[in-house]
Amino acid sequence: MSEESQPQSETKPNTGFAPGWYVVAASRDVESKPKPFLLNGLPLVTFRDSTGQSVALLDRCAHRNAPLSAGRVIDGNIRCHYHGWEFDGAGTCKAVPGLCGEPDHPGRRVPSFACCDSQGWLWVYSEADVTPYREPYAIPCADQPGYLTIRERLEMPGPLDAVAENALDVPHTAFVHAGLFRKNKGRKPIDVVIRSVDDGVEAQFIGEERPEGVAGRILAPQGGEVFHWDRFILPCIAQVEYRLSDRSHIIATTALTPRTQTVTDMFATVAVKAPIPDLILRTVFRPVAMRILRQDMEILRRQTEQVARFGAEDFASTEIDVLGLRIKKLLREAASGRASSRQDERQIKMLV
Amino acid sequence: MSEESQPQSETKPNTGFAPGWYVVAASRDVESKPKPFLLNGLPLVTFRDSTGQSVALLDRCAHRNAPLSAGRVIDGNIRCHYHGWEFDGAGTCKAVPGLCGEPDHPGRRVPSFACCDSQGWLWVYSEADVTPYREPYAIPCADQPGYLTIRERLEMPGPLDAVAENALDVPHTAFVHAGLFRKNKGRKPIDVVIRSVDDGVEAQFIGEERPEGVAGRILAPQGGEVFHWDRFILPCIAQVEYRLSDRSHIIATTALTPRTQTVTDMFATVAVKAPIPDLILRTVFRPVAMRILRQDMEILRRQTEQVARFGAEDFASTEIDVLGLRIKKLLREAASGRASSRQDERQIKMLV
Amino acid sequence: MSEESQPQSETKPNTGFAPGWYVVAASRDVESKPKPFLLNGLPLVTFRDSTGQSVALLDRCAHRNAPLSAGRVIDGNIRCHYHGWEFDGAGTCKAVPGLCGEPDHPGRRVPSFACCDSQGWLWVYSEADVTPYREPYAIPCADQPGYLTIRERLEMPGPLDAVAENALDVPHTAFVHAGLFRKNKGRKPIDVVIRSVDDGVEAQFIGEERPEGVAGRILAPQGGEVFHWDRFILPCIAQVEYRLSDRSHIIATTALTPRTQTVTDMFATVAVKAPIPDLILRTVFRPVAMRILRQDMEILRRQTEQVARFGAEDFASTEIDVLGLRIKKLLREAASGRASSRQDERQIKMLV
Repeated sequence: MSEESQPQSETKPNTGFAPGWYVVAASRDVESKPKPFLLNGLPLVTFRDSTGQSVALLDRCAHRNAPLSAGRVIDGNIRCHYHGWEFDGAGTCKAVPGLCGEPDHPGRRVPSFACCDSQGWLWVYSEADVTPYREPYAIPCADQPGYLTIRERLEMPGPLDAVAENALDVPHTAFVHAGLFRKNKGRKPIDVVIRSVDDGVEAQFIGEERPEGVAGRILAPQGGEVFHWDRFILPCIAQVEYRLSDRSHIIATTALTPRTQTVTDMFATVAVKAPIPDLILRTVFRPVAMRILRQDMEILRRQTEQVARFGAEDFASTEIDVLGLRIKKLLREAASGRASSRQDERQIKMLV
Repeated sequence: MSEESQPQSETKPNTGFAPGWYVVAASRDVESKPKPFLLNGLPLVTFRDSTGQSVALLDRCAHRNAPLSAGRVIDGNIRCHYHGWEFDGAGTCKAVPGLCGEPDHPGRRVPSFACCDSQGWLWVYSEADVTPYREPYAIPCADQPGYLTIRERLEMPGPLDAVAENALDVPHTAFVHAGLFRKNKGRKPIDVVIRSVDDGVEAQFIGEERPEGVAGRILAPQGGEVFHWDRFILPCIAQVEYRLSDRSHIIATTALTPRTQTVTDMFATVAVKAPIPDLILRTVFRPVAMRILRQDMEILRRQTEQVARFGAEDFASTEIDVLGLRIKKLLREAASGRASSRQDERQIKMLV
Repeated sequence: MSEESQPQSETKPNTGFAPGWYVVAASRDVESKPKPFLLNGLPLVTFRDSTGQSVALLDRCAHRNAPLSAGRVIDGNIRCHYHGWEFDGAGTCKAVPGLCGEPDHPGRRVPSFACCDSQGWLWVYSEADVTPYREPYAIPCADQPGYLTIRERLEMPGPLDAVAENALDVPHTAFVHAGLFRKNKGRKPIDVVIRSVDDGVEAQFIGEERPEGVAGRILAPQGGEVFHWDRFILPCIAQVEYRLSDRSHIIATTALTPRTQTVTDMFATVAVKAPIPDLILRTVFRPVAMRILRQDMEILRRQTEQVARFGAEDFASTEIDVLGLRIKKLLREAASGRASSRQDERQIKMLV
């Protein structure tokens, strides 16, 4: 038994916030009108400057702290509604109306955050005034030929680690999603390989039969073996991949953005290849997926309320909680600046 | 003048929580469907197992902390809605679906609370995983021949000690319940004996005339002397007893359960013997009693708000606050594990 | 550049609460019925005794802390609704119903606050049980012959210093009140003299032309030079004075009373002399003034929310923030008991 498979009680506070790129909006929703959002509790504002380039600033005027998002963009700069101070995309002060003299001054800067549009989403780097050494995560199969790509934004109750664990967890599906997915009877043992990947961890499920529920029947009407991987990639990617025969492939990539300690925005990109017309896929798949997500939201809401009521998490884990503890550990290490050098692989059995 | 009769300012925090048996529901309201409740801020869940035995557990799954009360009872065990873990009435883990191996493990236990049905109420012992050395309090006269027994549950604003003092306090009746009970004129001095009883304190009022208000006229239309006792018994019993002539006897026993620091559930059992038909008694007595209780709820709500606004109680007491300080002291001693060995009796005069 | 004109980041907590006289109500709104209010978070109650003298007490019965404001005035004393204790205007206990013996006792006093009616307002001194060595502030021109006097009470979001700065700030008018007041174009430099006055600070604006907006046109249709002063006088007076020609004079005196850390009651007295009939003045002036005030309330609400979200103010100031920092300093000094002995005068240029 490895560390993760020991039953144990964890009373530590929630894991921290890992630096990196986070999705904060759909690219098409960001215009020259300023748009406020919260990234891990920090109020930020995003808008497009006169060249169409997306910009993210701290949503607080350097002068009297009014929210810049209540102002408007004038010639590519954002103008505060209170005294008319203006800031460019780098956060430099460009106007102090009424002042005789230069507006620019180090004490009048607003912190600025790296920002870019990629694969339909607006990504913001979580640390102010730095140039990230790498690009945002590349979402596999999105908008690839042969794939139907669906994008959806959802507000999930709970901290990032709880939402990620839920998204990547197999055992809960027989209970929270009873009838839609897996069942709590006729279980058979399968093998699960858990291995580290770059900046993350992956669980591979070997020998699983096509789930009997509605979702499985849609994607692979003729049944057969399922190839299934669940992955978490720092700082915020939870990914579920299924291959059912050569003809069906589904890869759901969610970028999770902590809005506050207890609310996580989920930006989902689902790429599906299936032997069914897109229209039918869209018509049937989306309602089923949304029903599953609403069930997850409900149980996450209850879990989050409980942790608040008791003041802290007090979790016991078994070896079939294949990714939960590892996600917490990856986040904790990244939050404290330690890169995980762990390269390992282990195998367990689970009844599915 | 004794300690209690000195005017004094008490700025200590509210008294603690005394261990013991508390009522948490009417027995008939507890079924196999799990029912959540709060005991002094602690979320618990109660249900009946396959034999009909009542069970109380901490309302938190050992696994991912989901509320067990959101699950359901299967073959006498409670099954969590999130991952299907099951627990029996002793809190032992009986199922971890998907796990190859034994579900039972010390790290997977849920704390269990002694529980019993008595005199129409479900009583829970406040400390986890112990076998209480005695039974719950026996309510006098309840369901005795010749007595009409009324049970009522009310949610009172305020901490247990404030609700108990209010329930057992004479001087406020002329103001908060003006017209229904006593009056603030034509007062005459009576004697009050305050004496310790087992696990509590009792005030006996000697020489009081039948109150002139509606409540008094119903119970003793012909007037006469009143025999009247007010009692507090640890950890949670506030009891008011009146004898008006041989033919009228009323004993109102309230079991007070702190739900939170500022809300106390009151489970009242009123046993009445009176020279009036039960139907009339029920028709007239209940509305008057409810009106009195609503007036008490209103003043307790205001008092509780004030204590919150000012951050702490700052009470001055006189000798006619016969039980308030003693109740606080009994609770404080019991909360800190000191049994009160005090055996005393004192007498004061009060204008009633 | 003086201290105030340096760009700087202030991360100190909000300034404190300066002792002194505060307006808490319009005199006509205080009757024998007790009226509760908050002065800097402290619950007080005011009422008139049998002689019509206004009285202010801590709104907490000495006995069981019920709010005295829930009681009523009997023969000039306030009687608590819970147990009927009575207190006179000095806070002395005059009745403990049911008690054999004297009600008066040092432990049964309620703190009392100096109180007086002046110029239409009820003023309360902020410290309990002291006799103030001076009178409340005398509002200039109020009810003087030739002046129309308007009184208004408004609830402003924000701490006292933010509300005072906003009331006395010139640069924001071109943005928050765009069109009603000053404009953000065709600006010309004017001189501003900032000088200390008794218990306060004054800014005098020299060379300003009549503002082009609606408000200016009403008061001085023929244009001309404007004489303009903004003043803050401890502990709570923000005053704006305009003279436009010999015939127009407006002096708006607001007494600011912190209700809580983030809500300030504004009691405004506006005295206006203008070459227009009172009826027209009243009809036109009031709606414009109210619109301006609602715009200020909106930006103050946003500023206050921001400071709460970020946990503290983080302001940068320039020399055209002529009074903001000085107001904070005056309040800080007064709150800590240091009288400001500063006597100075400085001059800056501002584009208006």
